[in-house]
Amino acid sequence: MPDTGSHPSLVAVVMAGGRGTRFWPRSRNARPKQFLAIVGTETLLHQTVRRLDGHVSPDRIFVVTTEDLAAETRRMLPELPAENVLVEPEGRNTAPCLALALVEIEKKFPDGVMAVLSADHWIGDRELFLEDLDLAVKHAAEQRELVTFGIKPTYPETGYGYIESEGQGPVLKVKAFREKPPVEVAMQYLESGRHYWNAGMFVWTLADFREGLQLHAPEVLAPLDAWSAAGADPLTLPAAYRQLPRLAIDVALMEKAATVAVVPTRFRWSDVGSWPAAIEFQEADADGNVSQGETLLIDTRNSAFFGGGRLIAASGVEDLIVVDADDALLICHRDKAQTVKQIVERLKAEGREDLL
Amino acid sequence: MPDTGSHPSLVAVVMAGGRGTRFWPRSRNARPKQFLAIVGTETLLHQTVRRLDGHVSPDRIFVVTTEDLAAETRRMLPELPAENVLVEPEGRNTAPCLALALVEIEKKFPDGVMAVLSADHWIGDRELFLEDLDLAVKHAAEQRELVTFGIKPTYPETGYGYIESEGQGPVLKVKAFREKPPVEVAMQYLESGRHYWNAGMFVWTLADFREGLQLHAPEVLAPLDAWSAAGADPLTLPAAYRQLPRLAIDVALMEKAATVAVVPTRFRWSDVGSWPAAIEFQEADADGNVSQGETLLIDTRNSAFFGGGRLIAASGVEDLIVVDADDALLICHRDKAQTVKQIVERLKAEGREDLL
Repeated sequence: MPDTGSHPSLVAVVMAGGRGTRFWPRSRNARPKQFLAIVGTETLLHQTVRRLDGHVSPDRIFVVTTEDLAAETRRMLPELPAENVLVEPEGRNTAPCLALALVEIEKKFPDGVMAVLSADHWIGDRELFLEDLDLAVKHAAEQRELVTFGIKPTYPETGYGYIESEGQGPVLKVKAFREKPPVEVAMQYLESGRHYWNAGMFVWTLADFREGLQLHAPEVLAPLDAWSAAGADPLTLPAAYRQLPRLAIDVALMEKAATVAVVPTRFRWSDVGSWPAAIEFQEADADGNVSQGETLLIDTRNSAFFGGGRLIAASGVEDLIVVDADDALLICHRDKAQTVKQIVERLKAEGREDLL
Repeated sequence: MPDTGSHPSLVAVVMAGGRGTRFWPRSRNARPKQFLAIVGTETLLHQTVRRLDGHVSPDRIFVVTTEDLAAETRRMLPELPAENVLVEPEGRNTAPCLALALVEIEKKFPDGVMAVLSADHWIGDRELFLEDLDLAVKHAAEQRELVTFGIKPTYPETGYGYIESEGQGPVLKVKAFREKPPVEVAMQYLESGRHYWNAGMFVWTLADFREGLQLHAPEVLAPLDAWSAAGADPLTLPAAYRQLPRLAIDVALMEKAATVAVVPTRFRWSDVGSWPAAIEFQEADADGNVSQGETLLIDTRNSAFFGGGRLIAASGVEDLIVVDADDALLICHRDKAQTVKQIVERLKAEGREDLL
């Protein structure tokens, strides 16, 4: 019998319905970030699932994705039972996604403790991650609180929500969830020592999650319960889904719940939001260059090369990001990675669906 | 009957045995510069031959190349009789190359006037080129002098030989051939108004060329004459060739001949010696960018993109040269194009024959 992790009730739910083109030309409509090996040699989806190897048995790992990505997701994760890849008819943000997971997983593991993970985040230290996860699972199971993970901020990021904590110890009480702050406020958060980035990872018992949704967001749960009671026919799920509000779980539940705990994490984490973020945690050479694939670099500094099957030779350049895809090549200044969005918009305007 | 040019005796000899890897990753051992479309949409070899369209009939155009490039050269020039592609067993510099052309062409066109052209130079103004060519042919045929072309220098280049002229008029007398000068001397040449770049293009009657070689470089001619007298068997040419000195025609003949004339050219010319040179004469956009193939440029200046079948998107970069080949990609600063040589040397040292 495989090692099923430190807590026998643990069930992992990997949210893998993400979209986005910030990693163009690697990311495409049919090839979102979780399918890319942009940090390390494995895709972020693979890394997320394999991080649980030996800790959660495959039948207790669920992945939620959307219709169009389901086949590829199953193909990439042959170790999971095919039915553990849950399919949303459409993406309607995280509250419907997790409510669907609840309704499906309850049938098999009614006493489960559910850990919500993201398929497209990077985590640097597997052992610390598993220890923090176990801590959260234990707290959720024993204290019957909703638990979230808080990432210690390293700079005043204005693009994340923050968690304000109080108290002492390895598990803290959440005083408040704070929305994405202006930079002055973010700097205060950074200095306070009590604020953490909200990474969107959660742990709770299925029972507490159901109770929380019923109390704070019944409109997210009721149509799915009705669908489930009627036989959970996949063909009728789209109709049920259309009744669900587009809502983030933070708004639907976390900000409203009476008691939420936060585990300040010890592992390195990134939501890998852009090409520069994909570089940040990779090993660089003495000149600050990061290479994926074969490179030949002369007098080249502080650059990143995401190669494919071809040699990339560079000479006399610095602060570049180079991404080699089969049908397109991106060369941009490291500080201009946000213009990838413009590039994608122009391709869209020009009808270049083949490149999107 | 086709227009065979302004002078009925004109025979063109295109030297096409050049090697070199300065245009890596486009240029390779089996794909030298003359086979590349690096300026404009046609290869330099095509451009050189097609520049003569309607001016010299195909049966009077000869191309000299080496054994390993002969098949591809014939394939690229289906308009020429196959036997007009003359094959050197090995490259031994320009004097043996042109002596072989002499011996072969004399058989068909004993009264010919031979214009020596390079397959891997770029010439910008076809009509002016043909006018200057006619002028040189007329002078060679009527005055019975060896004629060279002089390119008006535009900067103090130290990598070319210079021709010092005297006199006035459209055809000048050559006072002396000057070797590659140090920069101070090159600046004096530039200011003198009497010095021209030696572009290695010549015009002479076959008879005068034979006489000149017999007088100044008999060792280049005698083995080929003996080979020809013995039946010109291609199988015995390598043995004859091995007897020939490795010698440039400038040294073997031009610098020694008593009277040489120079036609100062009016056409734009480049020997396209490096990637920056390949950019210089191409049409740039308003930001100074040159693109071959499809590009999508945002906030990008003074850069050149030699694309292949893939889109190249660039953002926030300047002064770059990007060359996309099927199996390798080059990204270098515009001022560092000379390091292509280092890249090639490193590939050689690493045994990457597949990329050379």
